[in-house]
Amino acid sequence: MEIDLSHYSVRTDLALEARELASGRFGNEIPGVHTETSEDGGDMIVTKMDITSDEGAAAIGKLKGHYITIEVPRLREKDSDLQDRVATRLAQEFAGFLQKIGIGKDAKVLIIGLGNWNVTPDALGPLVVENVMVTRHYFELMPEQVSPGYRQVSAVAPGVLGTTGIETSEIVQGIVERSKPDLVIAVDALASKALERVNTTIQIADTGIHPGSGVGNKRKGLTQEFLGVPVVAIGVPTVVYASTIVNSTMDMMLSHFKRQTSNTEQIFGMLDKMEENERLQLVREVLDPVGHNLLVTPKDIDQFIEDMANIIASGLNAALHEAIDQNNVAAYTH
Amino acid sequence: MEIDLSHYSVRTDLALEARELASGRFGNEIPGVHTETSEDGGDMIVTKMDITSDEGAAAIGKLKGHYITIEVPRLREKDSDLQDRVATRLAQEFAGFLQKIGIGKDAKVLIIGLGNWNVTPDALGPLVVENVMVTRHYFELMPEQVSPGYRQVSAVAPGVLGTTGIETSEIVQGIVERSKPDLVIAVDALASKALERVNTTIQIADTGIHPGSGVGNKRKGLTQEFLGVPVVAIGVPTVVYASTIVNSTMDMMLSHFKRQTSNTEQIFGMLDKMEENERLQLVREVLDPVGHNLLVTPKDIDQFIEDMANIIASGLNAALHEAIDQNNVAAYTH
Amino acid sequence: MEIDLSHYSVRTDLALEARELASGRFGNEIPGVHTETSEDGGDMIVTKMDITSDEGAAAIGKLKGHYITIEVPRLREKDSDLQDRVATRLAQEFAGFLQKIGIGKDAKVLIIGLGNWNVTPDALGPLVVENVMVTRHYFELMPEQVSPGYRQVSAVAPGVLGTTGIETSEIVQGIVERSKPDLVIAVDALASKALERVNTTIQIADTGIHPGSGVGNKRKGLTQEFLGVPVVAIGVPTVVYASTIVNSTMDMMLSHFKRQTSNTEQIFGMLDKMEENERLQLVREVLDPVGHNLLVTPKDIDQFIEDMANIIASGLNAALHEAIDQNNVAAYTH
Amino acid sequence: MEIDLSHYSVRTDLALEARELASGRFGNEIPGVHTETSEDGGDMIVTKMDITSDEGAAAIGKLKGHYITIEVPRLREKDSDLQDRVATRLAQEFAGFLQKIGIGKDAKVLIIGLGNWNVTPDALGPLVVENVMVTRHYFELMPEQVSPGYRQVSAVAPGVLGTTGIETSEIVQGIVERSKPDLVIAVDALASKALERVNTTIQIADTGIHPGSGVGNKRKGLTQEFLGVPVVAIGVPTVVYASTIVNSTMDMMLSHFKRQTSNTEQIFGMLDKMEENERLQLVREVLDPVGHNLLVTPKDIDQFIEDMANIIASGLNAALHEAIDQNNVAAYTH
Repeated sequence: MEIDLSHYSVRTDLALEARELASGRFGNEIPGVHTETSEDGGDMIVTKMDITSDEGAAAIGKLKGHYITIEVPRLREKDSDLQDRVATRLAQEFAGFLQKIGIGKDAKVLIIGLGNWNVTPDALGPLVVENVMVTRHYFELMPEQVSPGYRQVSAVAPGVLGTTGIETSEIVQGIVERSKPDLVIAVDALASKALERVNTTIQIADTGIHPGSGVGNKRKGLTQEFLGVPVVAIGVPTVVYASTIVNSTMDMMLSHFKRQTSNTEQIFGMLDKMEENERLQLVREVLDPVGHNLLVTPKDIDQFIEDMANIIASGLNAALHEAIDQNNVAAYTH
Repeated sequence: MEIDLSHYSVRTDLALEARELASGRFGNEIPGVHTETSEDGGDMIVTKMDITSDEGAAAIGKLKGHYITIEVPRLREKDSDLQDRVATRLAQEFAGFLQKIGIGKDAKVLIIGLGNWNVTPDALGPLVVENVMVTRHYFELMPEQVSPGYRQVSAVAPGVLGTTGIETSEIVQGIVERSKPDLVIAVDALASKALERVNTTIQIADTGIHPGSGVGNKRKGLTQEFLGVPVVAIGVPTVVYASTIVNSTMDMMLSHFKRQTSNTEQIFGMLDKMEENERLQLVREVLDPVGHNLLVTPKDIDQFIEDMANIIASGLNAALHEAIDQNNVAAYTH
Repeated sequence: MEIDLSHYSVRTDLALEARELASGRFGNEIPGVHTETSEDGGDMIVTKMDITSDEGAAAIGKLKGHYITIEVPRLREKDSDLQDRVATRLAQEFAGFLQKIGIGKDAKVLIIGLGNWNVTPDALGPLVVENVMVTRHYFELMPEQVSPGYRQVSAVAPGVLGTTGIETSEIVQGIVERSKPDLVIAVDALASKALERVNTTIQIADTGIHPGSGVGNKRKGLTQEFLGVPVVAIGVPTVVYASTIVNSTMDMMLSHFKRQTSNTEQIFGMLDKMEENERLQLVREVLDPVGHNLLVTPKDIDQFIEDMANIIASGLNAALHEAIDQNNVAAYTH
Repeated sequence: MEIDLSHYSVRTDLALEARELASGRFGNEIPGVHTETSEDGGDMIVTKMDITSDEGAAAIGKLKGHYITIEVPRLREKDSDLQDRVATRLAQEFAGFLQKIGIGKDAKVLIIGLGNWNVTPDALGPLVVENVMVTRHYFELMPEQVSPGYRQVSAVAPGVLGTTGIETSEIVQGIVERSKPDLVIAVDALASKALERVNTTIQIADTGIHPGSGVGNKRKGLTQEFLGVPVVAIGVPTVVYASTIVNSTMDMMLSHFKRQTSNTEQIFGMLDKMEENERLQLVREVLDPVGHNLLVTPKDIDQFIEDMANIIASGLNAALHEAIDQNNVAAYTH
């Protein structure tokens, strides 16, 4: 998770949130943006979004491509049965996603765990790497002994620019050139605009990972263009900016009072009329100069991150290897 | 850190913040509340507050007693030289505080590290216990070998109700009865109302620790009344409620615009006129029902907590033992 | 785990090993020592030992009382299915053990996790406390809401003398006096005489825990005599002295060569004729003065300790609460 | 640390120990092996060894090249003053070593932290990477702002084959190709033959790192040959094989009794006459088949590893950047 501070807009790495924001301006039908939502037993909401045109991409500020979001509001409640069901659903969705974007069952996979293992809300990627099943070395060293139903999987946690001094994308490029995978899966901690999404939401996308997008940014991303192989990103929000907490709360307050009175202007003055982005700009004008616009994370983050890393590792194991039963995913992960 | 949700008011464990809030209603002079502030080299602000009357206590919602607050805005910047200076100042202030409240140089001390070592923002107390120098067993087992200049210090991290099933105060009472200290020092992680105070502020108080104060609360505190010996608390804010982030940001926005226009009502509507507590109530009415009023902590909490535990352990070592040079505190702590 | 260096004998906290050592001198039948062994599916060996007379106790150097040992040689292999079966068996054996020594189904239990959470091979007790289900506070605060099938369980990790400055037994005594349990269960990391027993063996005993036993030792143990309630200890070897590794290896070498030649004296000289204790004394005479007789632990101790803590917490949960199915123990533990 | 089990000889990664072993066969003068020893204040022994001929290399079983060993027997005693002095000496020796082998003051450096951050005795390399000062990104992103006296340093912890599925040397090769350093410094945890060397000894060598050396081993090492740039290794023993503990203890016993009697054969039989390697083979014949030849580490490894990582990171910071005072190394490291 490396953060770009260069633009004034609601900060979210989630396409779902970007779409919600855009619907304020564009209404529910945005051309070139197709969404489809299903519920799973009342506990999970799965949304598939395809951004198919440049207009659609511009409208919501996300790249063209395919997105799946699994939302599980109760996921922070330490319910191990629910965690198993989420891992199972993730496995199924992920396997379907790979099929949809044309990745074959024997495609060699390199999993990249982004982030810093020493900073808890940033440790998701490295923890997934630690827990996922790797097989590539068996194929290299004793290919005749590998059972059918497994594919080549490798996994590396390359660290972050601040502790390595090297652009993460360059490290990954070097590893891709040496180990020659057919697909890179990048697992990353994200920023959300809403505290309630932290550690309750998993996003899958085939658009790669782009560190910063401001004017003049020369940093390279984890993208097919740069790496030469497709990149599927799995992201989980683990932090929120203080400013977006304030802003989304104001939004909730406005909605709340609009249900009670028509004259919200009396209550909220100009705040009532502002677009969400304008209001956020106001909030940030106040917080940024005094250094109060910190990234925050829930108090119980240690446990949440560990649980989430297990869910993702279990889901990936079952999605990537046919020999692993997608209905019993937990057994294969520590 | 055990949190009480039973009352609607700005949540802060810091007397300094409580006083700031009250000054909105009472102005700068609150009867029975005396404060004295000094700066230390531009990096530290030390405020001594004595609440001497029941009126003063009622006005700011804190118990009668003595408070020292050390604020170090730059303390999260990983400047090890600054950290050493804060430990040194803490040692001096703490030694002075003990003298002021009549604790002698040979008084036997039991340090209680409150909180859960498995939850990072709650691990401050247990980490201080791990790092502080304990000496009581030498006095018990080989008294003739203890050098002059040391006193009896013991230290226990009793855990939290949720993992022990026993009121922390009862555990401490049992230990006090067995080990017979003359003074209990309780180290605890606090909630602040402002994100910028998290891990930048240390509070010393002789009022004991009171878990919750709502109607019908039967829980016992770490107090002289209950334990039979004086209790000095050292607290550091490590978490903030989402609702107080929102509220204090709104406050900053109001101040910000008041500097630019006289007509803030036009901008903020009724929000402009509300008392801080009323506005907070509004924020909580919106956030609480949907479970969004989480306790949050900065993203880099792991490092902050470790640094702060070292500062407090170093400061205590130097304050408690005359043989330890208060100008070179860091050398005695891991 | 606090270690006593005061006597020259083979260091083992396991009754099973003490008996093996004694059988060299006494043969397979030791008066007053009854053992009964059963196998469970080839993976577990369960040995019940009752020491019923003072002679028996003297012969093997362990206190009169009841012992159960569960040995699982493959337990370090990270087989989660095997771990579940061990937890299940532990639950059954522990429930039977309590019944045998007359502890009723409603007896209130205090679990004491001995050891230091900051030293990995010593963190077993604190980790069990962190993972076990505590219920006492529900009985205290909302008794009408507790479902049938649960009993009062509390759990404390009191720390070690070196970091608290207070005898652990005194801390526990204070907590027992305040919280009034009917039974104390003490979980502790042990020293074994054989590396292969480390993290593969669980011992249950009703003899209490005795810190050191050398001449003039005034330290108090966790015993019924001292605490006033029965004490059941659960111990797992996590460390071995370098000297006992050497000694038990020499023993294996002798056995090995005795199968090949009658003239082991030619190979081993006097070492062949020595009693195990004499030879160990020799080894220690060489290692102790130069500080080489360290306590060691296997390289992968982090993982082993975490797995073992989960097994014991799961087993205790199922053994202590009738409402928890002893055949599905893992579901109730993190 | 990846271990090779393919050959029967005393396992040591330390040239110093290899030389000691060889001196049994070759006496104190081994052709092509030059050593020079100095003491530093009674606490440190610094040995410089140059292996200049193939004969010398064959005699002691180590590659031709330059070695420095810093032995600090008291280093496990948690003396922070001693730790600072060791970091200072390491900085001086390391700077001298680079000069000796012709590495210039502006040479760009990539530090590779070998090992697994999740296995304590194997976490040395990753912890050094976490603590060392990296500067390369400043040179890349804002070269005009870098003060004089600093050079380009980057640092990566690539993981181990078992969790990545990719040969570590291939990952490093990919990173070297992308980031183009002039020198690779590889930090690794080693196996020693003697428990007392664990976490008390630091070895510097310019021979690269070679994973295994058995017949038919196709694994590639971190060597100048493979990476195209010089490789300097910093190694610290953190583990010992049970078998080598036994063997070196037997050796000590023999020496011990030889001082007392001329007839050690009577005591030790044939063991007395064996070469060290033969005896070790005997020990391993007994331990290996039953799985008892574990790698072990001292009980207090958590603390030792953290301290050692700080020493090495501090030493490297001061050695690599002229702007950092080699007499005040600790200030620059966390």
